[in-house]
Amino acid sequence: MLVLITYDVNVTSNGGKKRLRHVSKECQNFGQRVQNSVFECLVDPTQFKELKHRLENIIDPSTDSLRFYFLGSNWKRRVEHIGFKEAYDPEGVLIIDANQ
Amino acid sequence: MLVLITYDVNVTSNGGKKRLRHVSKECQNFGQRVQNSVFECLVDPTQFKELKHRLENIIDPSTDSLRFYFLGSNWKRRVEHIGFKEAYDPEGVLIIDANQ
Repeated sequence: MLVLITYDVNVTSNGGKKRLRHVSKECQNFGQRVQNSVFECLVDPTQFKELKHRLENIIDPSTDSLRFYFLGSNWKRRVEHIGFKEAYDPEGVLIIDANQ
Repeated sequence: MLVLITYDVNVTSNGGKKRLRHVSKECQNFGQRVQNSVFECLVDPTQFKELKHRLENIIDPSTDSLRFYFLGSNWKRRVEHIGFKEAYDPEGVLIIDANQ
């Protein structure tokens, strides 16, 4: 299933920049960055549980925000893009495409 | 239907900050901000077409990125939140909830 993860980490709070780096790093372990604070992760329920657990242990819930959107397995019809992108396929490897 | 809109506007490029403000303003006209560059918009297909058209006319597709995620009408089961949030209901009014 595809899980979209979006986050806002308050970098002005204590340790905020470090938390931001950690959140980003964990998301990279499970998916691909599509925008600055947006990751698409192709995971099974066990992997998602693990990722969620790790992220919960990183963020400061009093200042940071994490959102998960479950797009299912038929996710391709649910996503549309306009403008600049690093073209990629969540099922494959990251490809930088300057023409898109 | 709920459409999630995420965007990255390159504010270091010419007119970037202005584009960012405009994108944000248009999204506010159709939905509610849930994170800094993330909006949830409850729209019908006609409204979505109009919003998309407006956003396409604002962004610079060579530097900015817009993504739409179609979460359908049964969207509540597709969304999960952790941490700080301005609690709200896309079907209702914005409520600031400091306890969540």
